[in-house]
Amino acid sequence: MAQAGVDRAVIASGLPQPRNFAHNLYPFRASSHFLFLVGLPLEAAVLDIGPDHEALYRDPPDPQATLWTGPEPALDELADRLKLDVFPLEDLQPGADTACTPPPDALSTWWLSELLDRALEPAHGAPQSEADARLAAALIEVRLQHDAAALEQMRQAAAVTRRAHEAGMRALPACATEYEVLAVMEAEIRRAGMLSAYQPIVTCRGEVLHNESYENALAPGDLLLADVGAETREGWAADVTRTSPVSGRFSPTQRDVYEVVLEAQRTAIEQVRPGVRYRDVHLSAMGTVTLGLRDLGILRGSEEQLLRAGAASVFFPHGVGHLLGLDVHDMEDLGDAAGYPPGRQRDDSPATRYLRLDRDLSPGMVVTIEPGFYQVVGLLASARADAALSASIDFDRLAEFSDVRGIRIEDDVLVTDDGPELLTGEVPKSVRDIEALCRQ
Amino acid sequence: MAQAGVDRAVIASGLPQPRNFAHNLYPFRASSHFLFLVGLPLEAAVLDIGPDHEALYRDPPDPQATLWTGPEPALDELADRLKLDVFPLEDLQPGADTACTPPPDALSTWWLSELLDRALEPAHGAPQSEADARLAAALIEVRLQHDAAALEQMRQAAAVTRRAHEAGMRALPACATEYEVLAVMEAEIRRAGMLSAYQPIVTCRGEVLHNESYENALAPGDLLLADVGAETREGWAADVTRTSPVSGRFSPTQRDVYEVVLEAQRTAIEQVRPGVRYRDVHLSAMGTVTLGLRDLGILRGSEEQLLRAGAASVFFPHGVGHLLGLDVHDMEDLGDAAGYPPGRQRDDSPATRYLRLDRDLSPGMVVTIEPGFYQVVGLLASARADAALSASIDFDRLAEFSDVRGIRIEDDVLVTDDGPELLTGEVPKSVRDIEALCRQ
Repeated sequence: MAQAGVDRAVIASGLPQPRNFAHNLYPFRASSHFLFLVGLPLEAAVLDIGPDHEALYRDPPDPQATLWTGPEPALDELADRLKLDVFPLEDLQPGADTACTPPPDALSTWWLSELLDRALEPAHGAPQSEADARLAAALIEVRLQHDAAALEQMRQAAAVTRRAHEAGMRALPACATEYEVLAVMEAEIRRAGMLSAYQPIVTCRGEVLHNESYENALAPGDLLLADVGAETREGWAADVTRTSPVSGRFSPTQRDVYEVVLEAQRTAIEQVRPGVRYRDVHLSAMGTVTLGLRDLGILRGSEEQLLRAGAASVFFPHGVGHLLGLDVHDMEDLGDAAGYPPGRQRDDSPATRYLRLDRDLSPGMVVTIEPGFYQVVGLLASARADAALSASIDFDRLAEFSDVRGIRIEDDVLVTDDGPELLTGEVPKSVRDIEALCRQ
Repeated sequence: MAQAGVDRAVIASGLPQPRNFAHNLYPFRASSHFLFLVGLPLEAAVLDIGPDHEALYRDPPDPQATLWTGPEPALDELADRLKLDVFPLEDLQPGADTACTPPPDALSTWWLSELLDRALEPAHGAPQSEADARLAAALIEVRLQHDAAALEQMRQAAAVTRRAHEAGMRALPACATEYEVLAVMEAEIRRAGMLSAYQPIVTCRGEVLHNESYENALAPGDLLLADVGAETREGWAADVTRTSPVSGRFSPTQRDVYEVVLEAQRTAIEQVRPGVRYRDVHLSAMGTVTLGLRDLGILRGSEEQLLRAGAASVFFPHGVGHLLGLDVHDMEDLGDAAGYPPGRQRDDSPATRYLRLDRDLSPGMVVTIEPGFYQVVGLLASARADAALSASIDFDRLAEFSDVRGIRIEDDVLVTDDGPELLTGEVPKSVRDIEALCRQ
């Protein structure tokens, strides 16, 4: 870290957060920076790193707590296990310029503000001082490209995620509600000793991109969009979306659009190689969707016109993916600093404004590739009111695709010198494979 | 509220809390006071109550958010639905003396502090001003005794909780780890569109009272303690514990202790009637455990000696139960104010210091009754070092019960004029019923 211009930094794991009263807690999730550097999800612990020291600070176990929450390792056991000096938290003496990572939540912000005697803001989404920014840059540098141990964790998360999706597809025809599919998928994750890396999306209203309600009844003509990923106990994530027919068989219109999205994903994945700019992968997917929807008669006009108007982004209104690692949007707690290198920033064009990543890819990075097609009422209304867009869309033809509310296909792709490596490639994805599972 | 001496009060629902970065949120849980008064789990909403007004404040839906999270009701739709005036949050003008309930978490504390221009502390566990204390007293008065609608919710939570426990028992003999049982039980809750009201305890190390890890492998001689309860979407909880033999059959020693705990629960439940002091229910359970363990030869000496020494509390080191309602420990966000009426407070005796409730029971209250038996290494070591306790325990005899690590049996009991009504009475509980389910 010292090489990166960081003199002294403190990385806190955070505190468990109350749900409705102090003793009813959400499952604890340590800060990803802490997990990366320490490897253990310790509550209320702080890693202190300076030019010539590195130590962990944590309160010794409370003997009373043994009754309630079981034995905790003594500080010297922790020191042995981590090969680190470990001291009681009260011995931490931060300096005036000590940098820190953004505390993941407000309670940890409060706690860390007192520990560091620094007024931090909660959920700030960006470094809060010059020193913090240098620390963030140093962490991004070491966290962007995953080593073998991290990849092994991500492969474990991917394997369990595969089981969850397969179980969901198998159960789908017998499920009456979104909740029932969710229960089956989450059970596979829990059974493996993992948690969901993010709130699952399991919905027949796939056009609501972050739909986190599961109350809809399923009808035979629906598509079910399931965006579900496991997280290992050490914190590493998978992030996979599949879209399956509730009846066990895609309708011709659903199949047509599905194949367009799948082709966009396939061609985008092919481009995932060292040196490629991620924005170009995104634009390639957007181009494939554009041509595919034109072939279906939903879009009309020349390729050039359609791309200039951003017509495909009416139906594909998000980025093609993001970084994946310890966070499902890796390092998004640092704002856009991880996704955008110095000198690049988000632009305001409809086709790219939601793009969370625009780095040149390098070996060891893991990115998601997740094009989609959605009929969002609000976006379609805006498109109708826009001269260039309304000329580009054949609304009569579109009406024939009313049973295609939302499709997304998402995989996790490792960048290697030999090209893209799918970490989640075994989750069924072709129309044939999905229909086979849904009809078992 | 005005009658209770509260001039003006603001009850906030709270904000969703981030897990590892701002956009990765835990499932939102509105404050129980807000749910009680408003009935809908609205994010970032505030109920403002004064002597001659009552209104809800909330930001109008963000049209952009429709794309991401689906349509939200407009303020006038909300007003229609709730039969309340609804205004934008920016119109809220609290006074200097406006009371509030404790915000459930630090982020909501931050937010409410700004809204009220008042420095609130997070997770304070008690009212933070005189006016807050009066508001708390008024809320306790209306929340202690449940009306028919609340009881209907609690019956729904109980019914789903029953399914979870039965599914867990059925799956138990085929499960290799605690996680596998947990997955089956949680899936029943999720399938019904509910969440767990608290972090489940599913463990073969039942002697760790709040064991929230699920990593142990199950062995045929183990008992599995499952403390799992569902919460309806409106927020009402169930809280049930059962202890089942992994092999499908209790060993003779397990069965002997199980029957002692079951008898203590049965006699305690019988006493749940209007006018009875809850501490006496607790002491009765402690008395039954004392005599039962003496009959087994684990305790020795006269009943009077054993009770005076608090010998049973070495094995039953917690209260016999607590209030249940919208919170699994109902209104514990107000500290002991809900559990202890004015004029009563916790004492320091081993037999009662962990008792969360010491009110005179009245119709409409729901309490848990949950005696237990645990072999906690630390407590047994302390008992050995204590003259009165070590004389009361036959450690050689106790060694014969080494396969009984922890047993707890817990039900939810409604106080009625006709006596106790078990809300969770259909969850299998007798040795015979549990063995029958575990061996199916």
